[in-house]
Amino acid sequence: MAKEFVKEITSMEDDFAQWYTDVVTKAELIDYSSVRGSMIIRPYGYSLWENIKNELDFRIKETGHENVYMPLFIPESLLQKEKDHIEGFAPEVAWVTHGGSEELTERLVVRPTSEVLFCEHYKNIIHSYRDLPKLYNQWANVVRWEKTTRPFLRTLEFLWQEGHTCHATDEEALEETVKMLKVYADVCENILAIPVVQGQKTAKEKFAGAKLTYTIESLMHDGKALQTGTSHHLGDGFAKAFGIQYTDKDGQLQYVQQTSWGFTTRVVGAMIMVHGDDRGLVIPPKAAPIQVMIVPVAQHKAGVLDFAYDLKEKLSAVARVGIDASDKKPGWKFNEYEMKGIPVRLEVGPKDIEKGQVVLARRDTGEKIFVAINELEAKLSDLLEDIQRSLYEKAKRHREGKTNVALDLEEFKVLLEKETGFIKAMWCGDRTCEDKIKEETTATSRCIPFEQEKVGDKCVCCGKEADEMVLWAKAY
Amino acid sequence: MAKEFVKEITSMEDDFAQWYTDVVTKAELIDYSSVRGSMIIRPYGYSLWENIKNELDFRIKETGHENVYMPLFIPESLLQKEKDHIEGFAPEVAWVTHGGSEELTERLVVRPTSEVLFCEHYKNIIHSYRDLPKLYNQWANVVRWEKTTRPFLRTLEFLWQEGHTCHATDEEALEETVKMLKVYADVCENILAIPVVQGQKTAKEKFAGAKLTYTIESLMHDGKALQTGTSHHLGDGFAKAFGIQYTDKDGQLQYVQQTSWGFTTRVVGAMIMVHGDDRGLVIPPKAAPIQVMIVPVAQHKAGVLDFAYDLKEKLSAVARVGIDASDKKPGWKFNEYEMKGIPVRLEVGPKDIEKGQVVLARRDTGEKIFVAINELEAKLSDLLEDIQRSLYEKAKRHREGKTNVALDLEEFKVLLEKETGFIKAMWCGDRTCEDKIKEETTATSRCIPFEQEKVGDKCVCCGKEADEMVLWAKAY
Repeated sequence: MAKEFVKEITSMEDDFAQWYTDVVTKAELIDYSSVRGSMIIRPYGYSLWENIKNELDFRIKETGHENVYMPLFIPESLLQKEKDHIEGFAPEVAWVTHGGSEELTERLVVRPTSEVLFCEHYKNIIHSYRDLPKLYNQWANVVRWEKTTRPFLRTLEFLWQEGHTCHATDEEALEETVKMLKVYADVCENILAIPVVQGQKTAKEKFAGAKLTYTIESLMHDGKALQTGTSHHLGDGFAKAFGIQYTDKDGQLQYVQQTSWGFTTRVVGAMIMVHGDDRGLVIPPKAAPIQVMIVPVAQHKAGVLDFAYDLKEKLSAVARVGIDASDKKPGWKFNEYEMKGIPVRLEVGPKDIEKGQVVLARRDTGEKIFVAINELEAKLSDLLEDIQRSLYEKAKRHREGKTNVALDLEEFKVLLEKETGFIKAMWCGDRTCEDKIKEETTATSRCIPFEQEKVGDKCVCCGKEADEMVLWAKAY
Repeated sequence: MAKEFVKEITSMEDDFAQWYTDVVTKAELIDYSSVRGSMIIRPYGYSLWENIKNELDFRIKETGHENVYMPLFIPESLLQKEKDHIEGFAPEVAWVTHGGSEELTERLVVRPTSEVLFCEHYKNIIHSYRDLPKLYNQWANVVRWEKTTRPFLRTLEFLWQEGHTCHATDEEALEETVKMLKVYADVCENILAIPVVQGQKTAKEKFAGAKLTYTIESLMHDGKALQTGTSHHLGDGFAKAFGIQYTDKDGQLQYVQQTSWGFTTRVVGAMIMVHGDDRGLVIPPKAAPIQVMIVPVAQHKAGVLDFAYDLKEKLSAVARVGIDASDKKPGWKFNEYEMKGIPVRLEVGPKDIEKGQVVLARRDTGEKIFVAINELEAKLSDLLEDIQRSLYEKAKRHREGKTNVALDLEEFKVLLEKETGFIKAMWCGDRTCEDKIKEETTATSRCIPFEQEKVGDKCVCCGKEADEMVLWAKAY
């Protein structure tokens, strides 16, 4: 017990990376194992992921998609069918070479993503324009052989959904690519209270095998960016490599146009780094496994526990409510549930019961309010909404405070040195400039935002004419 | 289109195995891929699995369990910690030997089951009796390197949940083992309408590393048995191998007592082989992705489609309703949705609308009834309940008709030759007899049923005194 009293976490300012590690382990989101680079997602972390997953799955189905399940393994020859794709993924896959005691005649890859499996299947089931569109999604684990890993942000194995669709026309595929990016943005902004910038990846940063990649980018507390979800227009590159053709209304054979899009457990890391503080996690109410934790005070006194349990039952109609009636001290409980980022703590003791009131303490601001019992349900609902909204607004203000405009490379460097954050700057479109900026500043192009601003008219790097504004940042 | 009109399936009597393959592919539950022994679970099959999963997940949470997620890979040394366990699984695992372009210093197994990962974690997080019980579950994919595979029944990779729990005492662990077997039986009997026999596996058939294994066994249409779910009391074997100890109330170090239990996509195969017929799938209403399919008749006539869509909306309050308003012929639609096992077809045409009625056709019996529109919701709910109940009863009668008692090995053989099914027979408890029965009849011991009947007093094989009745069968 004694050890549990001092769950100290490093302060964010002292060492942000250590703060992050402390939070994910001490708030019991994850644990390590002897499997290098992988994590155990503990009940609290998994329940959080389940909430996110359910919100996203609902939206994926609402937009007409169907869930399927593809094999975990991909034969080497299948992965090699699309040239750019294999080049992009070969260096970072895990290889199965033996089954039981036998060596395999063909090596198998543990899926890093499933484009090729979907393509093989689509070739089998798509024949006519009547078979289109095909709107499939799968929830799965994938593996990428990363050298350096961090819980949620970059792990050898992670959980995600990957959507894979086929369409008759380029326009329809493009529309789908945008639609699913907007679904991701919706989940980030309205469930996780993470403001995102929507935009297009540069050719350098796009997905291996894609025609174009759209992305949502968010800014962490430390000013580094995180790619939070991507949606790819694959064009007909995979269709040609796999021979996925349909007969159109005029009886002509056409290649399908495809998309793919993915959203991963990484977003949990984003949520932590956007909202967390020196006392630990801060979880937005809509994503929180427990929205309100009831902590009875002086619970040994007659009637307190009964009262608290009655409250729990009553409030369960409007929120996800927990109660800690263990014999641990209230001080320990306060710390623990702050660390776990539970949006609201409800304190109730003998005096409160006498006065017909309870105390609601906000995790985000620390503010405490007294609420009369007969107004509790309404006030609690309002409070949860208010917390959700103000977390989003706070994150947005933080991002805006850390977004600057640079007109030339010198200014770019100075700004980035002064404060890690987003840099808005014009770009000529030349890969050489993009590479040079990365080399000299370590910042990468995050996206070409859909909402363009003409912050200048010359490329921040070479000074040539430029009409695209790019968002740059150091990134996770 | 023409090809789709003749989705013929082999008759069950002609070739049951081919019938099964025809059904799973033509009802679009699965497709094959170039990944040997794995299957693609198509939207209709996955939606069915999602229904089963949701029902089971609800019950797992209701009984106090929490979901977690463990790594896909297991280092070889970790798998080797429990001697019986590695012996049981080593011959059937997939080995990862390379990551990217590098050979690994230690080989990784793709999890065939996750006991050792849970044990390693439990050792980290369990210290005191206050930490017990730990009731964890995970939904995951697992891989077993099977030589001969069949969709759902035996595949290289399958989906399942695996529960892993730790308890202070042997009694509590035993209680948990039984409790979760009953949860499985509940899902089988009340959702999938599959009657099961609950019992204990013989020492020969128990899980590698377990103290005892409980099982639910069901009987397929062809008289072969299928192990439909298992629940293991692991005792303290794993706890000793991994050093999972807690301090009890008296300050003494004790080993935990553990359980594990699993339920897989295999159950979809059971559902198919218990209820299916020569026209295809028959899905019990509670598991059906679509419970009622509306097929408009003469839909080109004014008002028919509007009426049909209104019905769909209205009925969605009481059932999962689909509608096929495509330009395919009603005859094609009738066949298609019979093949797909949709419990009820609702036909509505101009004449019906005039008379204020619709036709409901039962998939299980083929019976058609006319129902007045104003009674439709109530009648439909009743009908779905009736179908659910009668599928269960029919399956139970079928099983009882194929269950016989054998008093000696000769009778055992004659009975089994006459009719494949369950044989109830007394057993002395000797492994030699169990082996001999298998050798001479190909039947295996399915379980020692909890509900014992004294069908004799001598072992069916050796004739020595015997007081345990065993259920035997040829099995999948």
